[in-house]
Amino acid sequence: MWVRNCWYVIAWDHEISDNALFTRTVLDEPILVYRTEGSELVAMQDRCCHRHAPLSRGRREGDCVRCGYHGLKFAADGVCVEAPGVATIPVKARVRTYPVVAHNKWIFVWMGDPSRADRALLPDNFSCDHPDWRYKPGYVHYDTPYLLVCDNLLDFSHLSYVHEGTLGGSTAIAQAVPRIEKVPRGIRVTRHVPDVPPSAFWKSFQSFDRNVDRYFIYDFLLPGTLLMKSGGAPVGQAEGELRGGVQLHSCQTLTPETATTTHYFFQQSHRSSIADPAVTETIYRGLVTAFEEDREMITAQYLNTDPEARMLPLAMDAALVQYRRLLQEEVEREQRAPLSA
Amino acid sequence: MWVRNCWYVIAWDHEISDNALFTRTVLDEPILVYRTEGSELVAMQDRCCHRHAPLSRGRREGDCVRCGYHGLKFAADGVCVEAPGVATIPVKARVRTYPVVAHNKWIFVWMGDPSRADRALLPDNFSCDHPDWRYKPGYVHYDTPYLLVCDNLLDFSHLSYVHEGTLGGSTAIAQAVPRIEKVPRGIRVTRHVPDVPPSAFWKSFQSFDRNVDRYFIYDFLLPGTLLMKSGGAPVGQAEGELRGGVQLHSCQTLTPETATTTHYFFQQSHRSSIADPAVTETIYRGLVTAFEEDREMITAQYLNTDPEARMLPLAMDAALVQYRRLLQEEVEREQRAPLSA
Amino acid sequence: MWVRNCWYVIAWDHEISDNALFTRTVLDEPILVYRTEGSELVAMQDRCCHRHAPLSRGRREGDCVRCGYHGLKFAADGVCVEAPGVATIPVKARVRTYPVVAHNKWIFVWMGDPSRADRALLPDNFSCDHPDWRYKPGYVHYDTPYLLVCDNLLDFSHLSYVHEGTLGGSTAIAQAVPRIEKVPRGIRVTRHVPDVPPSAFWKSFQSFDRNVDRYFIYDFLLPGTLLMKSGGAPVGQAEGELRGGVQLHSCQTLTPETATTTHYFFQQSHRSSIADPAVTETIYRGLVTAFEEDREMITAQYLNTDPEARMLPLAMDAALVQYRRLLQEEVEREQRAPLSA
Repeated sequence: MWVRNCWYVIAWDHEISDNALFTRTVLDEPILVYRTEGSELVAMQDRCCHRHAPLSRGRREGDCVRCGYHGLKFAADGVCVEAPGVATIPVKARVRTYPVVAHNKWIFVWMGDPSRADRALLPDNFSCDHPDWRYKPGYVHYDTPYLLVCDNLLDFSHLSYVHEGTLGGSTAIAQAVPRIEKVPRGIRVTRHVPDVPPSAFWKSFQSFDRNVDRYFIYDFLLPGTLLMKSGGAPVGQAEGELRGGVQLHSCQTLTPETATTTHYFFQQSHRSSIADPAVTETIYRGLVTAFEEDREMITAQYLNTDPEARMLPLAMDAALVQYRRLLQEEVEREQRAPLSA
Repeated sequence: MWVRNCWYVIAWDHEISDNALFTRTVLDEPILVYRTEGSELVAMQDRCCHRHAPLSRGRREGDCVRCGYHGLKFAADGVCVEAPGVATIPVKARVRTYPVVAHNKWIFVWMGDPSRADRALLPDNFSCDHPDWRYKPGYVHYDTPYLLVCDNLLDFSHLSYVHEGTLGGSTAIAQAVPRIEKVPRGIRVTRHVPDVPPSAFWKSFQSFDRNVDRYFIYDFLLPGTLLMKSGGAPVGQAEGELRGGVQLHSCQTLTPETATTTHYFFQQSHRSSIADPAVTETIYRGLVTAFEEDREMITAQYLNTDPEARMLPLAMDAALVQYRRLLQEEVEREQRAPLSA
Repeated sequence: MWVRNCWYVIAWDHEISDNALFTRTVLDEPILVYRTEGSELVAMQDRCCHRHAPLSRGRREGDCVRCGYHGLKFAADGVCVEAPGVATIPVKARVRTYPVVAHNKWIFVWMGDPSRADRALLPDNFSCDHPDWRYKPGYVHYDTPYLLVCDNLLDFSHLSYVHEGTLGGSTAIAQAVPRIEKVPRGIRVTRHVPDVPPSAFWKSFQSFDRNVDRYFIYDFLLPGTLLMKSGGAPVGQAEGELRGGVQLHSCQTLTPETATTTHYFFQQSHRSSIADPAVTETIYRGLVTAFEEDREMITAQYLNTDPEARMLPLAMDAALVQYRRLLQEEVEREQRAPLSA
């Protein structure tokens, strides 16, 4: 169940290096991404229209790409401009291209009707590219459908259990009932957890002498992007004051690779100690460890799912139920209005 | 093709250790087994009713088990007794449990209608827990349907070929025509093989100065259990006299894991030299070697089977044909009388 | 899509050693090949008619093969001549045999109606067994359907790209338009490429002081056999003169293992320097390297193929389009006239 008329992250900016032919599969379509000599991004289907060989096994020639099987050459707009031994190139000799943009270090492709590609729909992943914030980029691959990972991110009660020894640390997180709100193309989740011990994660990069008040405020937006402010302060400290507290911003996004596999791009930015790379590294490592906890649980869940038995929705599932409904509505809207209208 | 209203072995008794959450799949259902603080056995579906995570990835809390994903806690009767952040737990929040018993070191689960669970249907695997007998417990996993292994056990003519250098040693075993009888819920197979050289297996734990008369007498019972007396004596020795002879008792049972994979629990007990652990170990090793011969052959057979070509029943297939018919009748009986009647 | 009434190569002659039971799958049928004591070849289905065990796991007994599971013994004509414990062997107890011939070091099996097996249909793979030629036999396994490899062999424009650094070396090969002709049961492809640098492959076993005129002349015949003369001479040299030139003969054939996997037997023979084994070895190594380039490309192509998107035929596809049509006609002819007529 995929929305098509939206931006999906296909790569971190640094993954698309000069002269290279980068390839990754999105919504079951292999997509080639490269930069022209003028640094313009190009995204085209990574499948030669002739015999379906991956173009990424070919080579760059100027701003074109040449197939490594029989030598067809395609311009950046996907049009075949040379075919060895072929006098007249047929008009059909072209490869689909996709709208592609770089936005705050994420490279996005538009998988639906190109005429509807709209930069206004890009998420506000500002901390991916902001002088006041530091992070190290992360990526993990899932052998599960992307919706199970969305579910995970829409219910932070799992922090108390999956991440008991890392991000969580207190059952109070699961006990705290979050506020769930509708926002344009998504859901906002706000959770305050007063007077709890700092997590092992927090203690890895900062010291505390008492309990903290924690908060998590995030939007979860189509097609599967989490933008979150989180942090907290020692109990009793005035709100908004940073001294001794933690202030993080996280950008995470899920891109379906296939119906059963998923790309997960993530970062967690910090605003204090930004001159200290050891803090950045520690936060990154902590996240990698915790996200591996998620991956093990979600993969086990996926392999254990009985398609004939229903899952039982509980109070904690409010956000994910709303999000799945929103997604369903969007998919149905797209099906009523065909892509190639 | 599975019978459900019967006991399946899910584990050896020693596999269910204190405080641990043991999991194994039976008839395609993942099942969690553990012991309460009072040492009562508990078997419940290893799938949280909330989001289908395996409960075995959670933890014990007293006699309860807590899911490691979102923290639901289940009592030994499968009822959810705690759900973080949930004011009123729905009545549907429960996990299926299974009748479970330990009987002579085998742990059995009843996979059908719980109200019909009947200890009288447990097999007489006495030598698994008897002071006069010694064995070392064995387990092997098959990537084949369980019926192919049943077939193997119901026709010992294969001893002459598959186990030529181990359990068999003479073509006379295959030549000897066994007596096949109907017994309650199974088939009895009796085979006498006079005046043959002792097998390599026998010679590994005892010495012989002449040929032996061998016998194999076993019941093969639903759902897939072999209980066998076997052995023999030097040619010419009075019947029943043990001197210089071999007397073994074997308990073996097959539990379908899925439609195409199988658990195989086995032991071969000896009654002589029970104070000598080297004899027990030698017999165990001999069996492991021979059962690996079976596994290689049956796996090769399974991968080689042409579903569109019929197998050709021969005289040696009398027992397995009768057993498959018995099984078929039992399955049809169950289908006529629904489980949840 | 397979033709059945034809000879498929199942092995190189040297693979069928004395006393051994050789097995390989052809058109989804496992086939056992062995030699009688009189060196006659036998090919029979590698599946016991009794319980489908592979006969190749059994053993030779004289000119017979005995199944290693329950001991059935089959004569070279596939008839069961012994079954342990069975008084009267049923007439149905027999295994299918296949016409099998050795011809110039290739072992062929006839997969269709045995009464139509016709030695006149064997390909002229003379250089596999000729005193004037030398080669080293090659084999590679493909995890792709055989037709994709046929396609590759029917369009040598790929030499300029896939084999740019090995067999090819010039885009002129792709530019040169070949002559395509119909021959009995196949297609003839003739391609001349004047005045090009010698390939890296050629330079590995011979030295050149100028450009060469190259040629490739091959028949591609049902069910998937390439017989090729290729070579060339320094520019300006009189035709037919061998001095300083290259003269090769290649026999290559594809045998479908299953619908999605393929056996590829190949050799490239040379006529000069036949007393120098280093030349033979160098040519063999060069071919292995180049065929690995093909295998990587064709496997990538296969995994990348979108079954719902059409491939786009271009001028370079003339031969492969004709060959696929020929194959289609042959398959339809066979379907109209059932095999067992």
